Amino acid sequence: MNLALLFEEDFVTTDRAVLSGRRLTHLHEVLKVSEGDLIPVGRVNGDIGTGRVVSLTDARADIVVDLAAPPPPPLPLTLFLAMPRPKMFRRVLQTCATLGVKDIWLINSYKVEKSFWQTPWLSEDNLRENMTLGLEQARDTIMPEVHVRKLFKPFVEDELPALLRDKRALVAHPGTATPCPMHLDLPTALCVGPEGGFTPYEVGKLEEAGCESVHLGPRILRVETAVPVLVSRLFDACR
Amino acid sequence: MNLALLFEEDFVTTDRAVLSGRRLTHLHEVLKVSEGDLIPVGRVNGDIGTGRVVSLTDARADIVVDLAAPPPPPLPLTLFLAMPRPKMFRRVLQTCATLGVKDIWLINSYKVEKSFWQTPWLSEDNLRENMTLGLEQARDTIMPEVHVRKLFKPFVEDELPALLRDKRALVAHPGTATPCPMHLDLPTALCVGPEGGFTPYEVGKLEEAGCESVHLGPRILRVETAVPVLVSRLFDACR
Repeated sequence: MNLALLFEEDFVTTDRAVLSGRRLTHLHEVLKVSEGDLIPVGRVNGDIGTGRVVSLTDARADIVVDLAAPPPPPLPLTLFLAMPRPKMFRRVLQTCATLGVKDIWLINSYKVEKSFWQTPWLSEDNLRENMTLGLEQARDTIMPEVHVRKLFKPFVEDELPALLRDKRALVAHPGTATPCPMHLDLPTALCVGPEGGFTPYEVGKLEEAGCESVHLGPRILRVETAVPVLVSRLFDACR
Repeated sequence: MNLALLFEEDFVTTDRAVLSGRRLTHLHEVLKVSEGDLIPVGRVNGDIGTGRVVSLTDARADIVVDLAAPPPPPLPLTLFLAMPRPKMFRRVLQTCATLGVKDIWLINSYKVEKSFWQTPWLSEDNLRENMTLGLEQARDTIMPEVHVRKLFKPFVEDELPALLRDKRALVAHPGTATPCPMHLDLPTALCVGPEGGFTPYEVGKLEEAGCESVHLGPRILRVETAVPVLVSRLFDACR
């Protein structure tokens, strides 16, 4: 937790918030703060800054916040991700939030097992909690949006073409001829398949919708590795 | 398992090998192979190719191998990694093997908890098993070397300078002034700190040994995300 992310319900006045639960435990056990200390905080979908701990007990921390700086810039990326298996999904979601992905579409694919959609990690609360962990890691505040589309064909035929408009649209597809471009730093849509990849039929449908198939070299990467590798290749984090 | 990695002890003649255990289970349950089928295989530290399943039971698979192609090129990278906490270590090790890192040094740092060094994941067998999983993911055969150095100061003072010779040497250090370079595609040494980062004293010692501090932008990344982001930035996987 490189920043404590504050939600509306944490605020008791405009500039005063109360922390409890996981974030309070972190203050006690990791940061080992005392009254008077400053901690890094941010307001969800707002600015980042510092919080002065004005009162600290085992049950709660009262902090007075001073938020003046913008969060790090978001990536100009819309990510379409074949629903990963639950354990990997949780990590990938956190990683996406940390990297600055703000628009995440979880889509179906032949190799997505039906059971993956039953995971409790897809509940509103768990989505928010895991994205919060990812944002706090990155000192970011802007909560990503997650969209769930459990049917492949209606999604790629009816919705996807409009979502790709005015974007460079790519599908990561090992074994294709074109290398993934570098440093687009422009509005981009990226489709990433499941373990085992999209089927040829699915790649064909994604291409019909406007995507270009690109590869990342001879190595096949797991989804949780492919996402940071692709993001790092497509965007310059240091700009 | 995008390739079954074969070890010397798997071979019964020059071109015939026997699979059992995890790899056999994968043939049955995931690949659902039958006698006569071809599966992708590689010989550890050797070539890749195909194996024809000539006999298949619940206890073993006999395959006749034909190895003719080289594995994907290795990264020209020496990675110095502050020992991660055990669960992350296992994933990072697999990821490094998948990405093509061949020279991994696990080093100490103030923020490495002593208990991290007690993990069973550091045993020879577990190192080999996890790197095998990473190599099989990438269809690679070249087993990385892992070196363990549990004392920071003697390592950076006595060993590190010679290891950095003829390499571009970097330490990933959030908050420093210089952005991480891109596309070196040359012999490179990279130091990655623990959760919470190297201490200023440690960064000073790494700089004395010849490392340049570089950053990856305003976001603080977890080690398991930082490694693929850095590798993707430093090297073009598609070359």
